[in-house]
Amino acid sequence: MSERVLWHNARLASLDGPAPWGWIENGALLTEGERIAWVGDASAAPAHDSVRDLGGAVVTPGLVDCHTHLVYGGQRAREFEMRLHGAGYEEIARAGGGIRSTVAATRAAGEGELLALAQRRLDALAGEGVTTVEIKSGYGLSLEAEARSLRVARRLQGADVVTTYLGAHALPPEYTGRQDDYVAAVCDWMAALQAEGLVDAVDAFCEGIGFTPAQTRRVFEAASALKLPVKLHAEQLSDQGGTQLACKFDALSCDHLEHLSPAGVQAMAKTGTVAVLLPGAYYFLRETKLPPVAALREAGVPMAVSTDHNPGTSPTLSPLLMLNMACTLFRLTPEEALRGMTVNAARALGLADRGRLAAGLRADFCAWDIEHPNELAYYFGRNPLRLRVRGGRTQPEPS
Amino acid sequence: MSERVLWHNARLASLDGPAPWGWIENGALLTEGERIAWVGDASAAPAHDSVRDLGGAVVTPGLVDCHTHLVYGGQRAREFEMRLHGAGYEEIARAGGGIRSTVAATRAAGEGELLALAQRRLDALAGEGVTTVEIKSGYGLSLEAEARSLRVARRLQGADVVTTYLGAHALPPEYTGRQDDYVAAVCDWMAALQAEGLVDAVDAFCEGIGFTPAQTRRVFEAASALKLPVKLHAEQLSDQGGTQLACKFDALSCDHLEHLSPAGVQAMAKTGTVAVLLPGAYYFLRETKLPPVAALREAGVPMAVSTDHNPGTSPTLSPLLMLNMACTLFRLTPEEALRGMTVNAARALGLADRGRLAAGLRADFCAWDIEHPNELAYYFGRNPLRLRVRGGRTQPEPS
Ligand SMILES: [Zn+2]
Ligand SMILES: [Zn+2]
Repeated sequence: MSERVLWHNARLASLDGPAPWGWIENGALLTEGERIAWVGDASAAPAHDSVRDLGGAVVTPGLVDCHTHLVYGGQRAREFEMRLHGAGYEEIARAGGGIRSTVAATRAAGEGELLALAQRRLDALAGEGVTTVEIKSGYGLSLEAEARSLRVARRLQGADVVTTYLGAHALPPEYTGRQDDYVAAVCDWMAALQAEGLVDAVDAFCEGIGFTPAQTRRVFEAASALKLPVKLHAEQLSDQGGTQLACKFDALSCDHLEHLSPAGVQAMAKTGTVAVLLPGAYYFLRETKLPPVAALREAGVPMAVSTDHNPGTSPTLSPLLMLNMACTLFRLTPEEALRGMTVNAARALGLADRGRLAAGLRADFCAWDIEHPNELAYYFGRNPLRLRVRGGRTQPEPS
Repeated sequence: MSERVLWHNARLASLDGPAPWGWIENGALLTEGERIAWVGDASAAPAHDSVRDLGGAVVTPGLVDCHTHLVYGGQRAREFEMRLHGAGYEEIARAGGGIRSTVAATRAAGEGELLALAQRRLDALAGEGVTTVEIKSGYGLSLEAEARSLRVARRLQGADVVTTYLGAHALPPEYTGRQDDYVAAVCDWMAALQAEGLVDAVDAFCEGIGFTPAQTRRVFEAASALKLPVKLHAEQLSDQGGTQLACKFDALSCDHLEHLSPAGVQAMAKTGTVAVLLPGAYYFLRETKLPPVAALREAGVPMAVSTDHNPGTSPTLSPLLMLNMACTLFRLTPEEALRGMTVNAARALGLADRGRLAAGLRADFCAWDIEHPNELAYYFGRNPLRLRVRGGRTQPEPS
């Protein structure tokens, strides 16, 4: 039987139950191995083998970053710079920029190099409290390179990793003019990747510059045949109706959603699909059309918030900055933002065992050097993380 | 004689000379005590007593954060949260929010408490490469409380501190209805603060919700009589013509400038006044009117970039995030942004001895874990600082 550890002297934003923030002022947590055995007022703490003093810190569930593209070669700072010097799409493409440059760099990188790069990125996320991260493929775009990226994702240390197969991210150069053939290949590769244990979910980029709804449907049909859950990059730049399509396949989440229609909102409400909001990409791309947050809220669609870390449109590694951006840019409340990077983010990954502080869930939590959890969203560019605990163990583990 | 240390294996963004970034690919720096004795290609390095290997890192001047309000009590996360729940100005004021809450908290705090709070904030700035920081008073608004704030600024460790007296920041409650009397008091207190060695420059908030141009003129006249340089919070929310006024007093800088007129641009160009751009406040306040960056650039006005750290309108402690926001929101190039937080920021403080890597200047520099300095502006919410050197000494000093 595991040691029963009482973590006390904590002010809990449990995000569980009806109270704002699930607040427990004089809180304590009992962990038993990787799980939370009990949460409540310290005065009612059950028997335990040892205690850990959290020093009066505010304690939240560990953060869940539910939409990232963390595994890739290179970066795109030169392209960012060129654009600020006035270069257009054509000139950047001629200079070897754009997503194709990331695909080329990812294909050229060995597994060790990809692992080292991605580990540093994950370390940065973990350093701000992330305990679970979703990672998509989609810069390999061949069976071999997609498999390599997903293997790298599986090998990362320091957070629980959920993998998503995003073969339908972009058209690789060797398929120019043969988009349907590429979609067929993406569907073909799926079973092999799944057999290797590399796929927790399947995603696609349904957009004018991505894949059509009909092509997206083929990807989803392949996923459904393999009993893999789906999610979608939907309505980011235009309303393609991808959300309604995804909801027909009981999608876990639809992500971005700046151009989501009322019909899309209703479809999500009906299936309980999570709306994953990505303010970093909105900010970096200087978008002006906001996702319909008020309509989502009113319809009861759960909202998540994520970094969308990727080199082209969201080179951020700060989940806390995304909480601020979700509030400042998208007008979420601080509590909605935090729920968006904990309980609703977990739901967007199909994980019911985390994202709140409650008995039976994983013992993933963070202690913060703040007075109130609203400060996590108020500051931007400040990291008050004091302690991160994953599966009941302090991270990083003492060496 | 001081030890002559050669810092080699560095790729220098010296920001000195005509080359883009002042780039020296195979660079080295010779330091002698607190100063740089030589900068150039490693193959031409002069005699030295010892060497330090910078591991191939990109090296820039230490960052200069030239506009902050770092010393204050409390924070305003509750106000941020209330606004996101739909509260208006009135309701927030009734709940004790707004700048008056910060004034009350600052007045109530002891010097030790203010020092501890400000030191943590400065540590965060220094942790991203800041070696020189400007700190304004302006939350005390009495002689005693302004003096206390400036004394705290002087006592901070870890970066060189430049102090600015901003008595004319807001009207304290005890002067309600007597704004001119308060301006007279601000002018009266100036000599005493200067005599205590607490004032490097004088600033004011010239705005409809701040002080009028006529009142600002009185503050500047008092400063000039004491031979103190001036700067101004100018044209942030409306065009008051404060910039032209400040330039008549040879202002070191005018700051914010979203509503700056063409006449204001010309006035700055003529006096060589630095335009301090504050994208954090622009972002946090959801402003839509951009400062006239193209006109400033064309007129040859030096542009600086700063955090404007303050609890009400820019609760950020990330200078690197400001580099990204200066590019993403204000369309500076990455090199302009970095010059804006080094050489031009130093100029905004009247400091000619720093902000570039050049012989004779202070040995303040940072080594970054990146391939190219454009990455400092490209990422947002990522801190690649590897090493910070201030006055020739690695920071923090080994204990
Ligand atoms: Zn994405
Ligand atoms: Zn200011």
